[in-house]
Amino acid sequence: MNTFGTLFKVTLYGESHQEAIGCVIDGVLPGLKIDWELVQKDLLLRRPGAVGTTPRVEKDELHCTSGIFNGFTTGSPMHVMIKNENVISKDYSHLVSQPRPGHADFVAAKKYNGFHDYRGGGRFSGRLTTPIVVAGSIAKQMLPFEFSHELISIGDLKDMSLIDSYLKEITQQGDSVGGVIQVTVKNMLVGLGEPNFYKLDSMIGQMMFSIPAVKGVEIGTGFDGKTLRGSEFNDVYLDQEGHTKTNHSGGVSGGISNGNDLVVKVFIKPTSSIGKEQVSFNQEKDELTNFEVKGRHDVAIVRRAGIVLENALAIVLADLYLWNKVYQ
Amino acid sequence: MNTFGTLFKVTLYGESHQEAIGCVIDGVLPGLKIDWELVQKDLLLRRPGAVGTTPRVEKDELHCTSGIFNGFTTGSPMHVMIKNENVISKDYSHLVSQPRPGHADFVAAKKYNGFHDYRGGGRFSGRLTTPIVVAGSIAKQMLPFEFSHELISIGDLKDMSLIDSYLKEITQQGDSVGGVIQVTVKNMLVGLGEPNFYKLDSMIGQMMFSIPAVKGVEIGTGFDGKTLRGSEFNDVYLDQEGHTKTNHSGGVSGGISNGNDLVVKVFIKPTSSIGKEQVSFNQEKDELTNFEVKGRHDVAIVRRAGIVLENALAIVLADLYLWNKVYQ
Amino acid sequence: MNTFGTLFKVTLYGESHQEAIGCVIDGVLPGLKIDWELVQKDLLLRRPGAVGTTPRVEKDELHCTSGIFNGFTTGSPMHVMIKNENVISKDYSHLVSQPRPGHADFVAAKKYNGFHDYRGGGRFSGRLTTPIVVAGSIAKQMLPFEFSHELISIGDLKDMSLIDSYLKEITQQGDSVGGVIQVTVKNMLVGLGEPNFYKLDSMIGQMMFSIPAVKGVEIGTGFDGKTLRGSEFNDVYLDQEGHTKTNHSGGVSGGISNGNDLVVKVFIKPTSSIGKEQVSFNQEKDELTNFEVKGRHDVAIVRRAGIVLENALAIVLADLYLWNKVYQ
Amino acid sequence: MNTFGTLFKVTLYGESHQEAIGCVIDGVLPGLKIDWELVQKDLLLRRPGAVGTTPRVEKDELHCTSGIFNGFTTGSPMHVMIKNENVISKDYSHLVSQPRPGHADFVAAKKYNGFHDYRGGGRFSGRLTTPIVVAGSIAKQMLPFEFSHELISIGDLKDMSLIDSYLKEITQQGDSVGGVIQVTVKNMLVGLGEPNFYKLDSMIGQMMFSIPAVKGVEIGTGFDGKTLRGSEFNDVYLDQEGHTKTNHSGGVSGGISNGNDLVVKVFIKPTSSIGKEQVSFNQEKDELTNFEVKGRHDVAIVRRAGIVLENALAIVLADLYLWNKVYQ
Repeated sequence: MNTFGTLFKVTLYGESHQEAIGCVIDGVLPGLKIDWELVQKDLLLRRPGAVGTTPRVEKDELHCTSGIFNGFTTGSPMHVMIKNENVISKDYSHLVSQPRPGHADFVAAKKYNGFHDYRGGGRFSGRLTTPIVVAGSIAKQMLPFEFSHELISIGDLKDMSLIDSYLKEITQQGDSVGGVIQVTVKNMLVGLGEPNFYKLDSMIGQMMFSIPAVKGVEIGTGFDGKTLRGSEFNDVYLDQEGHTKTNHSGGVSGGISNGNDLVVKVFIKPTSSIGKEQVSFNQEKDELTNFEVKGRHDVAIVRRAGIVLENALAIVLADLYLWNKVYQ
Repeated sequence: MNTFGTLFKVTLYGESHQEAIGCVIDGVLPGLKIDWELVQKDLLLRRPGAVGTTPRVEKDELHCTSGIFNGFTTGSPMHVMIKNENVISKDYSHLVSQPRPGHADFVAAKKYNGFHDYRGGGRFSGRLTTPIVVAGSIAKQMLPFEFSHELISIGDLKDMSLIDSYLKEITQQGDSVGGVIQVTVKNMLVGLGEPNFYKLDSMIGQMMFSIPAVKGVEIGTGFDGKTLRGSEFNDVYLDQEGHTKTNHSGGVSGGISNGNDLVVKVFIKPTSSIGKEQVSFNQEKDELTNFEVKGRHDVAIVRRAGIVLENALAIVLADLYLWNKVYQ
Repeated sequence: MNTFGTLFKVTLYGESHQEAIGCVIDGVLPGLKIDWELVQKDLLLRRPGAVGTTPRVEKDELHCTSGIFNGFTTGSPMHVMIKNENVISKDYSHLVSQPRPGHADFVAAKKYNGFHDYRGGGRFSGRLTTPIVVAGSIAKQMLPFEFSHELISIGDLKDMSLIDSYLKEITQQGDSVGGVIQVTVKNMLVGLGEPNFYKLDSMIGQMMFSIPAVKGVEIGTGFDGKTLRGSEFNDVYLDQEGHTKTNHSGGVSGGISNGNDLVVKVFIKPTSSIGKEQVSFNQEKDELTNFEVKGRHDVAIVRRAGIVLENALAIVLADLYLWNKVYQ
Repeated sequence: MNTFGTLFKVTLYGESHQEAIGCVIDGVLPGLKIDWELVQKDLLLRRPGAVGTTPRVEKDELHCTSGIFNGFTTGSPMHVMIKNENVISKDYSHLVSQPRPGHADFVAAKKYNGFHDYRGGGRFSGRLTTPIVVAGSIAKQMLPFEFSHELISIGDLKDMSLIDSYLKEITQQGDSVGGVIQVTVKNMLVGLGEPNFYKLDSMIGQMMFSIPAVKGVEIGTGFDGKTLRGSEFNDVYLDQEGHTKTNHSGGVSGGISNGNDLVVKVFIKPTSSIGKEQVSFNQEKDELTNFEVKGRHDVAIVRRAGIVLENALAIVLADLYLWNKVYQ
């Protein structure tokens, strides 16, 4: 349940307000020199600070307790732990009776019979994406591909250069917005992906929807292609290496990478925690009541999610990259 | 690779033009009386016949060789086989040098070193969705939920009552269209889905992208929600059972079913095989050449895909339904 | 549950008295020319005929419905089906009230709430080892190793050249015997096996105990080594390739093949079905009663089990062989 | 590779001489009150101290960083970390050229291209059994069964009351011995185990051979039953609950627990590291040379292994116990 992958296997643990979160990364090839500064750089991209992001800032100090010897990976599982330090726990005690709209409070209480750790979202917290960033950053160092991501839309903002002032306005309204992030992978190999249920896009689908707040995933042109004809949507091959004129398929044919850029677009819903008063059902009082979500939160979590999605994609590719070696 | 699920496990086999296709369905609860007419009804929905669908019609006669005793499931794996009968194999020999745009010909040749069965798309053929329909139909009989699906858009057609004449026109143009299908599940239980990587939506993502031609998946409102504010997107709880006023989240909170209708929308790309002449790279001649895709194909495969997606979703729910019993 | 392996994946289905048994073999490398006569030869070794084996003889005609094109494997799953033809079903109806000692009748009824197919042992029948022989035979054709097996003890027989007359005697007594089989693999590679839980010996342990009637598994010298000292048991390395003077470790060090012969010894218990009258509890009468096990059975199933164990081992090695390619 | 189980999932990490070892335990039911003193008691049984055990004593202080809230399990993965403190690293640098007989040095160097951490056996060290003891101790607290283990033979010692003086003698000889441990589980339920490859005994086989130094596994009477007849080996049922007169089958019928005591016997080979001089091949000098294994080691690791095997068995049962709930 908390483990992803077949050959490159990532196991997560942790809850928002407990002692630590972390991951075990199994399947890293031996002999890889890990550049921890690259990992820290990725973590910085996830960390709050920009307009529209939460004031809870964690140092995210990494403890790698195993899997490295003389600076190189040993082939043994890497364990990376991150302590939860900036924790304020008193904010959350009321969530038992008043499940927040858009959050997992209600379902978690039902599923785990009331024993879940509800503080700060517990295991459902966005904080759990930190070890995903770490594992993905290691994955990228093992792969010959080139990763990037871009925020391509946010709320109803028309001009992306106005993003800071737009988010200030949303903050003042006590509201939140979502958006769409595009992750692109260049220098792809042909052949990654195992039919039927371990296709490249199947694994991307599984992984991306594992990231909190994701409510839509597209490969290539996606839903925007619904009005196109086949003669327009088909990507014409241009050479022996399979390069295509257009890339509506986003680099995936029949579930297998075709060597063109891998393009994945992901919809992040508006942050569920908003500043202004909401109405929702109170389970104890047995009636609809007004309430406010306390705690520190992001107005536009989508602003920090890009590196999470990019590195989540790297984990998928690491798994299928190792898998594809079987055929060589 | 060809097996989906943890407790309700479906293994597929078969290629379009070989002797048979089929599946092994492992994890069906013992003591279930299987209604094979319901399975046949589902298969009929997938079968061609309507305007815009292929003239290759298979009888789809099912051979269930194991797992049933005295009319009830035994708890042992069910094996269901379907023979490939209406096969014309001479159409496909040229695909080795001329990979078709939008198809898996190119990647399959690379990945399997030229040994793949390219006839009719081989293992990548939409024909492989037949055993998915069968397995999902069995899954639905094991589940207390109510499934349905609807074609909510097709190409650039504005008025869905004109679909037949629209597709006739597309056929005459020698072209194809895609569309969007919505699958809805009513009477859902609270609690299905296992964080982090086996969330309900993660499993839906994996499964839906396993279906050929799927290039986008949304849960609930999806990408259309990108311009909404959090105060609009949040689904307000109305009662103790977790019913909500709106259902932007599509019945999934924190990766777990919340008891509201499960709503999944899937984008099916325009059929890659089109009637009219195309240009693409010929690997043997080492140049761009004009060519036509021969064989029999669908102008709008999206018209037949609804039951595939519905039943694929049922397979996902069967797996997570059994899993959730662990907590009871 | 009915699927073994990670990269070379075998899924079994079938019950003794239903229409067919079979397997899906997923992960066979593309481009392999399958010699079906070798498969048939292996099946012959499993088939009854020798003194001490059952008179139920099946033709074991194989139907391979997918995964082969132009005589070579395609990389797509192979499905092999074998019909159950020589079935006499009237013998087994009394097993519901009178579970046979040593058989699964009692536990199956409890676990599957009485819905299991009890005829001929149902899914627990030794008949299910036929697809294991088939899958293992395919595995051996993919591997560069040399497999053999030997019956090294049977009952309390001292001189193995007297086996036929010994078993005639046991048959006349209406009794049965067990024995020990040794499987040896020569020309092993160094490096097969993944620590911790996918060690070569871990996978052998899982697989061997999956074969009906197996109640003990040893790697190398095994239990006989319990009186040896470390200075005797340690296998002294003799050269750069890791060849050792002795082979107490049976070719496995730290769970990884060390290049010496892989040696596995397996104890097969005496066949549970015996000719003479037994006493056991009758669940309907609620008392101990005398009864006889009807049907056709083996006096020494161990005589037919060698090829099953050999090929089961080949399945294990195929999986770990593919896995080890990841490191190359 | 480092993850065991389907529903109760244990992931190990760590190497003997790195910062820490530990495990992620996924699938613990929510609402369980963990008694850490019981865990510590189990760890004490594994810790050295008795005659014949190593002078490397670790405090084994446990850090549980997640999965517990208000003293109860949350249903989220538990992560337990144990620091490596009593580490002397200078002893092992010569192992690269001089692989020790009986150890994994040779195979690890080949498999991981020389990048493995060879200090103290690295990932192959018996130290990695500590998290198995921890995870098994948690598992036992979740299960209604009663576990125990017994050392039933050690070397060629006839009278087990003389064990201390026997091991002193072996120590003086600079040698080592192995032995046999029996694990017994009482109060078993009927029904644990999933045919075919997830049988109770299959899972036991996988798990037990995952423990370092294990070279043989038996269920019930095992190899000693090879001279028995079927009429003797068959366990006669005595009542409706399936209690049997004898227990040659060790509580497992057809791979499923039958409610009688589960009995597993495991052969632990003589400790490979011995005090006296040995001859083996030196890869650098390219010749056989005399050498001594330095470092601190056990003369009879079998003396400390009982709790490891007992708790390893508990992990297996926890997984199958949760699985069996699916049928209820």
